[in-house]
Amino acid sequence: MSDKIKEILSQMTLEEKVEMCSGADFWNLKGIERLGVPSILVTDGPHGVRKQAEGADHLGLTDSLPATCFPSAAGLASTWDRNLLTKVGRTLGTEALSEKVGVLLGPGANIKRSPLCGRNFEYFSEDPYLSSELAASHINGLQSQGVGGSLKHFAVNNQEHRRMSTNAVVDERTLREIYLASFEGAVKKAQPWTVMSAYNKVNGEFASENHRLLTEILREEWGFDGIVVSDWGAVNERVASLKAGLELEMPGSYGIGKKKLLEAVESGELETGQLDESVEGLLELIFKVVESQKNDVSFDKKAHHNFASEVASESMVLLKNEDQILPISKEKDIAIIGALARKPRYQGGGSSNINPTELDDIYNELCQDNTADVSYSEGYALDGDQVDDALLQEAKNHAVQAETAVLFLGLPDAYESEGYDRTHLSLPENQLQLIEAISEVQSNIVVVLSNGAPIEMPWLPKVKAVLEGYLGGQALGSAIAKLLYGDVNPSGRLAETFPVRLEDNPSYLNFPGDGDEVEYKEGIYVGYRYYDKKNVEPLFPFGYGLSYTTFEFGNLEVEESKDGDYNVKVSVDISNTGDRAGKAVAQLYIKDVETTISRPEQELKGFEKVHLEAGETKKVTFDLDMRSFAFYDVDLQDWRVEGGKFEVAVGSSSRNLELSQTITVKDSHTKPEKVNRNTTMGDLMKNPEQAKIVENMLASVETPLTQHMDENSGMSDMMEAMTKYLPLRALSNFSEGKFTEEDMQKYIDELNQASTPTV
Amino acid sequence: MSDKIKEILSQMTLEEKVEMCSGADFWNLKGIERLGVPSILVTDGPHGVRKQAEGADHLGLTDSLPATCFPSAAGLASTWDRNLLTKVGRTLGTEALSEKVGVLLGPGANIKRSPLCGRNFEYFSEDPYLSSELAASHINGLQSQGVGGSLKHFAVNNQEHRRMSTNAVVDERTLREIYLASFEGAVKKAQPWTVMSAYNKVNGEFASENHRLLTEILREEWGFDGIVVSDWGAVNERVASLKAGLELEMPGSYGIGKKKLLEAVESGELETGQLDESVEGLLELIFKVVESQKNDVSFDKKAHHNFASEVASESMVLLKNEDQILPISKEKDIAIIGALARKPRYQGGGSSNINPTELDDIYNELCQDNTADVSYSEGYALDGDQVDDALLQEAKNHAVQAETAVLFLGLPDAYESEGYDRTHLSLPENQLQLIEAISEVQSNIVVVLSNGAPIEMPWLPKVKAVLEGYLGGQALGSAIAKLLYGDVNPSGRLAETFPVRLEDNPSYLNFPGDGDEVEYKEGIYVGYRYYDKKNVEPLFPFGYGLSYTTFEFGNLEVEESKDGDYNVKVSVDISNTGDRAGKAVAQLYIKDVETTISRPEQELKGFEKVHLEAGETKKVTFDLDMRSFAFYDVDLQDWRVEGGKFEVAVGSSSRNLELSQTITVKDSHTKPEKVNRNTTMGDLMKNPEQAKIVENMLASVETPLTQHMDENSGMSDMMEAMTKYLPLRALSNFSEGKFTEEDMQKYIDELNQASTPTV
Repeated sequence: MSDKIKEILSQMTLEEKVEMCSGADFWNLKGIERLGVPSILVTDGPHGVRKQAEGADHLGLTDSLPATCFPSAAGLASTWDRNLLTKVGRTLGTEALSEKVGVLLGPGANIKRSPLCGRNFEYFSEDPYLSSELAASHINGLQSQGVGGSLKHFAVNNQEHRRMSTNAVVDERTLREIYLASFEGAVKKAQPWTVMSAYNKVNGEFASENHRLLTEILREEWGFDGIVVSDWGAVNERVASLKAGLELEMPGSYGIGKKKLLEAVESGELETGQLDESVEGLLELIFKVVESQKNDVSFDKKAHHNFASEVASESMVLLKNEDQILPISKEKDIAIIGALARKPRYQGGGSSNINPTELDDIYNELCQDNTADVSYSEGYALDGDQVDDALLQEAKNHAVQAETAVLFLGLPDAYESEGYDRTHLSLPENQLQLIEAISEVQSNIVVVLSNGAPIEMPWLPKVKAVLEGYLGGQALGSAIAKLLYGDVNPSGRLAETFPVRLEDNPSYLNFPGDGDEVEYKEGIYVGYRYYDKKNVEPLFPFGYGLSYTTFEFGNLEVEESKDGDYNVKVSVDISNTGDRAGKAVAQLYIKDVETTISRPEQELKGFEKVHLEAGETKKVTFDLDMRSFAFYDVDLQDWRVEGGKFEVAVGSSSRNLELSQTITVKDSHTKPEKVNRNTTMGDLMKNPEQAKIVENMLASVETPLTQHMDENSGMSDMMEAMTKYLPLRALSNFSEGKFTEEDMQKYIDELNQASTPTV
Repeated sequence: MSDKIKEILSQMTLEEKVEMCSGADFWNLKGIERLGVPSILVTDGPHGVRKQAEGADHLGLTDSLPATCFPSAAGLASTWDRNLLTKVGRTLGTEALSEKVGVLLGPGANIKRSPLCGRNFEYFSEDPYLSSELAASHINGLQSQGVGGSLKHFAVNNQEHRRMSTNAVVDERTLREIYLASFEGAVKKAQPWTVMSAYNKVNGEFASENHRLLTEILREEWGFDGIVVSDWGAVNERVASLKAGLELEMPGSYGIGKKKLLEAVESGELETGQLDESVEGLLELIFKVVESQKNDVSFDKKAHHNFASEVASESMVLLKNEDQILPISKEKDIAIIGALARKPRYQGGGSSNINPTELDDIYNELCQDNTADVSYSEGYALDGDQVDDALLQEAKNHAVQAETAVLFLGLPDAYESEGYDRTHLSLPENQLQLIEAISEVQSNIVVVLSNGAPIEMPWLPKVKAVLEGYLGGQALGSAIAKLLYGDVNPSGRLAETFPVRLEDNPSYLNFPGDGDEVEYKEGIYVGYRYYDKKNVEPLFPFGYGLSYTTFEFGNLEVEESKDGDYNVKVSVDISNTGDRAGKAVAQLYIKDVETTISRPEQELKGFEKVHLEAGETKKVTFDLDMRSFAFYDVDLQDWRVEGGKFEVAVGSSSRNLELSQTITVKDSHTKPEKVNRNTTMGDLMKNPEQAKIVENMLASVETPLTQHMDENSGMSDMMEAMTKYLPLRALSNFSEGKFTEEDMQKYIDELNQASTPTV
């Protein structure tokens, strides 16, 4: 604690202290004028700065000041580019500074458990490693400018359905390996100034009152040293939340939180020491903000727009490109079809909604570069899913006349938003009918999608190309034009699995839960971990994405660490074997091939995006560490590596790993198993020292069940199995009185003295 | 308690009492000679009487006296015939009486959670209703002869892997609806004299020490009045097991159990009252057995063999019959191929292994009736899966010369047994190669399978017919001959789903668990409940089976109960529309079409097997009851019907329901929801009385979040959803101080006074 903060704290009254623990209003923290503590401003992010105009709706969900709208997280994640995310963060930081915003609320590191979650567009991935790496990059960029990040929504907030009351029931291993890991990496690598606690309950306790999450895990284990702010309205009981480690209630509760804290201090329920700690954290945040603020920061709107276009072009994923229909020649007639080409869906609904500085008209962007004929037809209405035959007919007429039809399809605003979940993965009926109609008259169909999360594509065989545009931000139009015409080579890769149909999703049987309880029964098998393990063919796998050029992976080298730790170095050469520049994403997956417990087929543990000129080759390196091989051992309450063989596989997507190599790593822990009356013969036989004792024991007992054990004789498979699974104590039932409780105890002592097995 | 038992109990010493609570040896209960209490004999079942010969291996797993070996439970279940099961039970009873066996250990009502479970052949079904109905029929038949049944293995014993130490973790609803329901029906409908407790733990406690299972649920809820016997060696701590409700430890522990019980009584840990109750139960069982025993009971071995053949022919399931290749004319040359045709696999390995009175040679049975040429070739060796080219070549030569090749395939003994689980669903490699080889030279291939549980059939397109023979008992050969030649029309129906591949099984991600913990994360979605819900195409669905004739369902009538209870009567006409007699199985499934919680797409709630002459029509009726519509409500700790529409569907398999009708049933419970600070606006708005109060409340608060609510105006979908999910307490954050804690409490009181919603 700095002297300054110590001094201020010592001068604060109890009333001032408790008052500071709730916001002053919707967007401002409470300052203390008499002590020179200013009020600071926080606003929604994460893909743009959403600051309310003066006098706007006091809830603050409309009429925000113009800001650059970047692609939302689903798109950002598809870039698989840490540096780009850092640059986005820096750019957002500049805009925030220009508006005197101290903390920009984001990014969201929640895992995409189901494609139905209405807020998936604001989250990065189904994979915790990818998600945490990108969140860290975003925060590092933002905070490098002196603007705080707010890593949200901590934790296990994976649906909008009943989000303020639902209880997410997750087993400990799943919590650690999937849902918390996505935050853990970001906290450790980026130290966000704030973490935002989620609305929902986690295993029975509100996230905002969860001492284990907010204090034991976040601070004590991960070393988080910022403050925890509630999601807006997430505080249930203010005293419980502060005691759990939540310093800041937002928005203000207009005296209710203050009063409760005051009473709690007076009654002794809340110790003043803990209150002081919270206030200290708040003061530290406020002065960190104050010290970073700069006057007269402005930014070049056009430059930021152009950067948003660059980001958008990196975020879009080419899913299909039959007959190399893309890129489209600028000299070809094209029919642009679909209302979304002129009323683009470029961001999701809810608190992240940005008022953009400008907005590309996709149609115009496509016209601009084209020297031939470009027609436009609406095709369908965006407000509803009714089929309009006149619109269909017009679109068909245009499609017939063109060489290629480019269909702009996607989810209308009402389909996908913060606040509620989707109920199916289909496009609106009028868009489905449009594809059908156009395919009757035109075989060259390119589909460009605007949506925040996967859709089903039963119509895929009818079209030649699909460009997944996600929600591309304000400059999506220029990005699409550059990609379709080949001025930019597509380099996005899916950060999530696209299922063939909703039922294939791992959470399908348990989403969004019954009443206020949602059980995460698919466990660690989220996303590709499930599709791989269950051998379910996805529509498009995790990590997938096409390019206009071709890449080759070669020369995989795996350098095991000399001192036997887990710091393995991996390198691989990537060559651009095509005739135009492009970006490849090298993905590294680890598979535990000898595991004794249930583990995923493979897990992403490294990725690098590289730009390659035509014909160029670059070496990419990855540094693995203990966590690359570990699972969370619930008994040990720690990450653990089970020694043995692991496969290191590198390639271009989770289902296209061109190269692999097997290495051996050591056990991270010896896990002593104490022998007891229920230890099985089979488990004891695994340890040579104990096996000798067991053999003596069985010889002395002469039970027919086990007497053939050392003879390697005609013992049947069944007898062998029965003996293997037999606990020590059951010998008494199968030895006609030759094995007493006293005998057993003697052997248990002897077995425990024998060397400790490593598991 | 009878006077006689009261008298004996009063004369017993403490030592005699505790001694009686463990077996005298492997198969006998302890009697008390001085008080005229005899020792009674129990032996393994359930598909035959396995009594040890004098002087045989004292473990008693070999050298048993000859007895009729019936098809094992997997086959019995495929008959879908309660009457037949009862008759099997009666026949077993006669044989048991002839050997002075007091209790025949069986049947097994464990649910087939995974096709890998090594003991599935001894269990009936993946469906608890079918399983419990058949178990009840079996027990009723057996006990009608004065021989006790032992319903096993209670409970949640669904794998052999680490069966004596593994802990089955199952949520309460799943436990009730699936795993316990399979026992519940059998206990209530048949009152088995004994129930056998399982080896494994259930939710952390050994089944044999589980007071909740053995006393609260089994006796107090279900009204069981027999005794609980441990599976052989399943007692962990004798005192804990007796206190939980386990009267009899088997086999004896040669003084260990006795000593522990004695010490517990002396220390006061065990009350003498509870000991007396246990002994009373044991005495009642002993005298029930004694009173039922008859001298000079004998049976006609040939007649029982013939009956076993009849049962076998009813148990086999015709899975495929392309081009009506079956039945085979007796005048056609056939090539019989496969070692299993001469060394049949007719029962499973383990404690149920019977020494049959005689054993059909399948080849001989097929020769006997055939007037043309019948060749035999071994095709593969049964002891291993190595391919033998000479055997293959010989089989090919025979196949070429015949009009039809009949391949006898299946799982060798080593593949499937009590004691261990399978690891895959494939036939041995040498059998797969055989199919391949024969299919190269012969297009008319009939496959007859001997196996206790599903296998994968990637070779299915190469063969024209498949008869699933399961483990058909000692008379399988004559049954197969009658079915293949058409002397008997196949009428078996699958009591389990055959998956296309192992990964499709619902338990795949969680079987057989990690270490000593197996989590039943698929929940209630076991068997067809999963395939239906996830829309996964099975290889053959639950309830499926072909016939040589055709049936039509018509005239579905659903008669709702007049007094509004759940006693709905359903009737349907079934017609044999083909030209030969046959048996149809009418299956009735119920679907809750309006449920607010996650429920299966459909559940079996009735079935009837009927014999129909060619052209004949019969009416079949079903009586539904409350349980036909109910799910287990964990909050209420009771079965509950959520009122509304239900579909009653009747037909020939779970995926071929020709007729259906929708009915409306009422709520079984009103479930009062107490309003509290976290009750959501949306939940309150469902109740008209409460909705009025909420509207007043929101009007008084004038929050922008909700002010449009009664205007039906331009409120966005997001705002509507956010408001719906908003808990009362969060209004304070969104109303600028206009909603205080005091206001909230006042409204909560008012809302609680408004009429109670029914859910």
